[in-house]
Amino acid sequence: MTNTALVVSAHSADFVWRAGGAIALHAAKGWQVTVVCLSYGERGESAKLWRLPGMTLDRVKAEREKEARAAAEVLGVHDIQFWDLGDYPITLTNDSLFRLVDVYRNIHPGFVLTHSKEDPYNRDHPAVCEFAQHARITAQAHGHNPHQKVLGAPPVFLFEPHQPEQCGWKPDVLLGIDGVWEKKRAAIECMAGQEHLWEYYTRVAQQRGAQAARNSDRAIKYGEGYQSVFPHVVETLG
Amino acid sequence: MTNTALVVSAHSADFVWRAGGAIALHAAKGWQVTVVCLSYGERGESAKLWRLPGMTLDRVKAEREKEARAAAEVLGVHDIQFWDLGDYPITLTNDSLFRLVDVYRNIHPGFVLTHSKEDPYNRDHPAVCEFAQHARITAQAHGHNPHQKVLGAPPVFLFEPHQPEQCGWKPDVLLGIDGVWEKKRAAIECMAGQEHLWEYYTRVAQQRGAQAARNSDRAIKYGEGYQSVFPHVVETLG
Amino acid sequence: MTNTALVVSAHSADFVWRAGGAIALHAAKGWQVTVVCLSYGERGESAKLWRLPGMTLDRVKAEREKEARAAAEVLGVHDIQFWDLGDYPITLTNDSLFRLVDVYRNIHPGFVLTHSKEDPYNRDHPAVCEFAQHARITAQAHGHNPHQKVLGAPPVFLFEPHQPEQCGWKPDVLLGIDGVWEKKRAAIECMAGQEHLWEYYTRVAQQRGAQAARNSDRAIKYGEGYQSVFPHVVETLG
Amino acid sequence: MTNTALVVSAHSADFVWRAGGAIALHAAKGWQVTVVCLSYGERGESAKLWRLPGMTLDRVKAEREKEARAAAEVLGVHDIQFWDLGDYPITLTNDSLFRLVDVYRNIHPGFVLTHSKEDPYNRDHPAVCEFAQHARITAQAHGHNPHQKVLGAPPVFLFEPHQPEQCGWKPDVLLGIDGVWEKKRAAIECMAGQEHLWEYYTRVAQQRGAQAARNSDRAIKYGEGYQSVFPHVVETLG
Amino acid sequence: MTNTALVVSAHSADFVWRAGGAIALHAAKGWQVTVVCLSYGERGESAKLWRLPGMTLDRVKAEREKEARAAAEVLGVHDIQFWDLGDYPITLTNDSLFRLVDVYRNIHPGFVLTHSKEDPYNRDHPAVCEFAQHARITAQAHGHNPHQKVLGAPPVFLFEPHQPEQCGWKPDVLLGIDGVWEKKRAAIECMAGQEHLWEYYTRVAQQRGAQAARNSDRAIKYGEGYQSVFPHVVETLG
Amino acid sequence: MTNTALVVSAHSADFVWRAGGAIALHAAKGWQVTVVCLSYGERGESAKLWRLPGMTLDRVKAEREKEARAAAEVLGVHDIQFWDLGDYPITLTNDSLFRLVDVYRNIHPGFVLTHSKEDPYNRDHPAVCEFAQHARITAQAHGHNPHQKVLGAPPVFLFEPHQPEQCGWKPDVLLGIDGVWEKKRAAIECMAGQEHLWEYYTRVAQQRGAQAARNSDRAIKYGEGYQSVFPHVVETLG
Repeated sequence: MTNTALVVSAHSADFVWRAGGAIALHAAKGWQVTVVCLSYGERGESAKLWRLPGMTLDRVKAEREKEARAAAEVLGVHDIQFWDLGDYPITLTNDSLFRLVDVYRNIHPGFVLTHSKEDPYNRDHPAVCEFAQHARITAQAHGHNPHQKVLGAPPVFLFEPHQPEQCGWKPDVLLGIDGVWEKKRAAIECMAGQEHLWEYYTRVAQQRGAQAARNSDRAIKYGEGYQSVFPHVVETLG
Repeated sequence: MTNTALVVSAHSADFVWRAGGAIALHAAKGWQVTVVCLSYGERGESAKLWRLPGMTLDRVKAEREKEARAAAEVLGVHDIQFWDLGDYPITLTNDSLFRLVDVYRNIHPGFVLTHSKEDPYNRDHPAVCEFAQHARITAQAHGHNPHQKVLGAPPVFLFEPHQPEQCGWKPDVLLGIDGVWEKKRAAIECMAGQEHLWEYYTRVAQQRGAQAARNSDRAIKYGEGYQSVFPHVVETLG
Repeated sequence: MTNTALVVSAHSADFVWRAGGAIALHAAKGWQVTVVCLSYGERGESAKLWRLPGMTLDRVKAEREKEARAAAEVLGVHDIQFWDLGDYPITLTNDSLFRLVDVYRNIHPGFVLTHSKEDPYNRDHPAVCEFAQHARITAQAHGHNPHQKVLGAPPVFLFEPHQPEQCGWKPDVLLGIDGVWEKKRAAIECMAGQEHLWEYYTRVAQQRGAQAARNSDRAIKYGEGYQSVFPHVVETLG
Repeated sequence: MTNTALVVSAHSADFVWRAGGAIALHAAKGWQVTVVCLSYGERGESAKLWRLPGMTLDRVKAEREKEARAAAEVLGVHDIQFWDLGDYPITLTNDSLFRLVDVYRNIHPGFVLTHSKEDPYNRDHPAVCEFAQHARITAQAHGHNPHQKVLGAPPVFLFEPHQPEQCGWKPDVLLGIDGVWEKKRAAIECMAGQEHLWEYYTRVAQQRGAQAARNSDRAIKYGEGYQSVFPHVVETLG
Repeated sequence: MTNTALVVSAHSADFVWRAGGAIALHAAKGWQVTVVCLSYGERGESAKLWRLPGMTLDRVKAEREKEARAAAEVLGVHDIQFWDLGDYPITLTNDSLFRLVDVYRNIHPGFVLTHSKEDPYNRDHPAVCEFAQHARITAQAHGHNPHQKVLGAPPVFLFEPHQPEQCGWKPDVLLGIDGVWEKKRAAIECMAGQEHLWEYYTRVAQQRGAQAARNSDRAIKYGEGYQSVFPHVVETLG
Repeated sequence: MTNTALVVSAHSADFVWRAGGAIALHAAKGWQVTVVCLSYGERGESAKLWRLPGMTLDRVKAEREKEARAAAEVLGVHDIQFWDLGDYPITLTNDSLFRLVDVYRNIHPGFVLTHSKEDPYNRDHPAVCEFAQHARITAQAHGHNPHQKVLGAPPVFLFEPHQPEQCGWKPDVLLGIDGVWEKKRAAIECMAGQEHLWEYYTRVAQQRGAQAARNSDRAIKYGEGYQSVFPHVVETLG
């Protein structure tokens, strides 16, 4: 059976900066990764596009989707979905919740990636964190669409916010991504509208790589940090 | 090369209640587990023995050592050491620190188990937690006994204190121990002086087992909880 | 004047596992305890029922109500109400809020029991915690139904979630329930649909009992833990 | 260019007790301070008025507005607005959000004052804290009313709640207000409906003043405490 | 049998500002309260005395003892002891530890009062907090002076530090002290060397009183706040 | 009168990585900055030197001092002191404490920089944090060397540890250091023995610079982060 993973991204670029390495790494191992972009980030994360003359909301969205699709292609994403729920603020209804429950039940992901619990700079991110977990819990309920196979207990990892300490985010998992770094960098460069972040997130990868090396005594140059929501159930500590 | 692990136990019974499952599990897989009992717990954790007529400190210690050796035998401990450093309060000098550094460098453990950071009911436990980590850091220093191979970065897991919530202890690792539960129970029953704790820690194992099952969607009946000190460096999230 | 207490339970079995001892204890002392079950837990906490052939939502609800009524009877509950607000997710409107305000003002409870503030495994529980407190605050407002006697300042205690450490829940009150344990166990056994939890919550009671004994130097075998929301106002520390 | 500041107050008296000193101090330096009173606090914070015979909601609101306008006058408030959004609970819609975004963009405040993140005694306060920050973030979004100048990054300070420790509020900024204390006291005395709080908040000012003196080795008698939301960007540490 | 209580005070005035109400209240009810002043606070808390011409360490100590004895007399302290262990920094040896263990075992206190766990302004206070609890734990050990009756499990309450929020101190117990306020104020006035604190701590009592009133819906004017170390074991929640 | 500042550095390179920008910035403004290197870091932070053939402890220390002096020269340090107290573990006696008290009283620093409160990777750092604050408190005591002018209340800032999130370190002050970045980089390059850290700490400066820009809406490229110990006493919030 094919392994699957689910990434719930508030805005259409978040999955690249924050989880591009994990996506490429698992895709390369044959995992089918589904990315749900709940909004395009068209209002709050598209400053450069809005500075162009004659820009409209629809053109911003179209541009953002094009960039995200290109990045997804580079990373080996299996399925990328754009739900266009708006941003700043994002609108998260029960209808969207049940739609996400359907995604969970369709793919039965082996793990889930989403945003941090807090972010004083960004209200959509914590809202999506809560939403993604809410859908996961609902997908576990036997009484929701009783004829379906309920979701098990996939681990949830929260990816790195822009200013980690200000968000109370503490990485307890460090993923080495050396083997796919070139892909992540290429995906980052698809984000033409946010070029000011390319080097910032490259440095993030280098710092997390150096920390992964230090915490494992192994040679690692690029990394991604994650914060677990649930305890790890293991069969050995070594 | 043989895998090794190190357990740093404040009193001579702690390794049984708190880490007996992990010890037996890894021993069964061929790991060589070293247990350092820094004290016998002769003053603070031997109430039942002290109620016997004519009891002396030496007799308590002898009895405690006998019990711990029997438990270690059952669990498959490779090497158990009794350092007799006193308890309530334990005395942790630099000499003992460097002795523990030597242990780290002799066995190069794949992981380390020790006490929680806080415990308002027990001052020796947090002191030993700090001591075990201090020795680990010193063992990593190139300038300490410069001719030796320095320690890498073994993960440290803090085992469960008696009243977990009061100690600010939160398990982020749950270890299934069904396969060795009978051994852990047998080791527990070696602790004749603390019979009042047998059922208590059996229930702890059952609760952690039920939680491990719930967090993994797998059938697990007995478990042990651990709190990680350092981030996990991983090669996959699945 | 009769003493009264209020238990706000998200799903129809929560009051049994989490507060059955407190309910029976105070009922036995003549308190009138009102239990509000906001939902039946028909979707998210009725797995066993859903596995029966031909099960429908209405039958699940009916079964859950029957079980809860039986348990309430055993515990000596004065008034149990089923508001049928749905679950996974529960729907908490302003209408329900004002209805709960009315309950507060009708009974003027001496204390209030409800869920923990956080629970990554269950979104309804923290939502109900917030809701129960919101209603309490509104019941204190002089401008809400100005002709009524406003609520005083009853203490609020949060009962134990399923995996306490994962919910950031720390008990600061331990209630000995030896005298009513048989009743609590009998009430637990009314929950035929969740038989897998009977032993789990029996062990919870035993662990809290052992801890109550240790923190008081008294003989206590069964207990319940609670986390206070507000400071205790006392007339003596002894 | 004139300096401006924005105070977002849940109920019409909050800005007086909690930020009256900061308002008067900056007004005296030529700052234009805008105060938005989202509600009158007519239901939850007007107990004394409701005890008067024949009182109605409209009369309470009128009285509250009169008091607040008088206080604002004393403090030198540039613009005070009453949005009448209700209280206990306050109703915060997207329409109100965008209206507050407009205020941000109209005045481009140099700093923002609002409520604490938590308050177990008052649900409106944390809701307004979140609301004020949400509006600030939205005002920074280039895609919101794209033709307007977006908001920069004004610091946000959370003023003191009624029972600071119970609200997890920790002051990291202490403002000396000796020069305007008389004005703050005069504004406090405009709040005829809450006379029981006059001395309480005078003592708060004295305690914060004594603490400001102790933390600076300067002579300060009256103070206000604030908790920063964002890091301070500085050009010198001295 | 007479009820007893133990107050462990770092410097000779701490028991007055921080616990004078509790002492007087329990003394008035017939409790025998023992106060151990570990140091005189002669170096760090006697600024006014040091400004007098020709002052010496011995004269400061003598003056501090005189003041403390007078205050103890007013409060009805049963036994006040001055251990003269130095201050800034205080010196806490194992000898002093065992001496304090003896006090615990001699009086078997019904409760214990001491300092907060943290205080960035005062290093002696947290050191004494740890010391007082360490002695309590040692007094519980059956192997310490095996012929003696071991200590039970008296609750420990941490009294209020000078700047509570900066010390991470949160009161979860509020004690009404109206009946003995005059005594506490009189004891405060015995502290001639720290006159600048008289009004400060009077205001502290008024604020805690107002908060006690608000949390209980009872008329209370003066109070003291305490933070519990251990869970309360209770027989009723009402 | 000349402004002064004090940097308390556990090992002889810490002041460079962690506070080089602040030192150069204030030096350039005429501040006299004193740096106390409590140890050389000769055992724990000199791996590269120890790999050279025939290396001895004395040669490592000499090399480390040479590097640190060169860096201090570049940064414009007024006075650098090497106390040679050992490392891994550092030895912090009362004699050293009083020596540091003398430094405080000699220079009366306008602010103090030192290590973070926690660091699971490095025991010396938190020990020095505590030591530096302990000396500060002692320097404030009127009874310590009673003839001297006591210390006021200089703010203390904790500089950035190697893995900030793992140390519970949260920057609440961001210092722009663009004007002195070249000097900081040159000082970093004096640390020949730790070349692997040059780029790491350059990236740290870039990330903190980007964050300073984002939090202030100003153009800042390089920064340093600090965590305050005490509240800021201010005269304006703007």
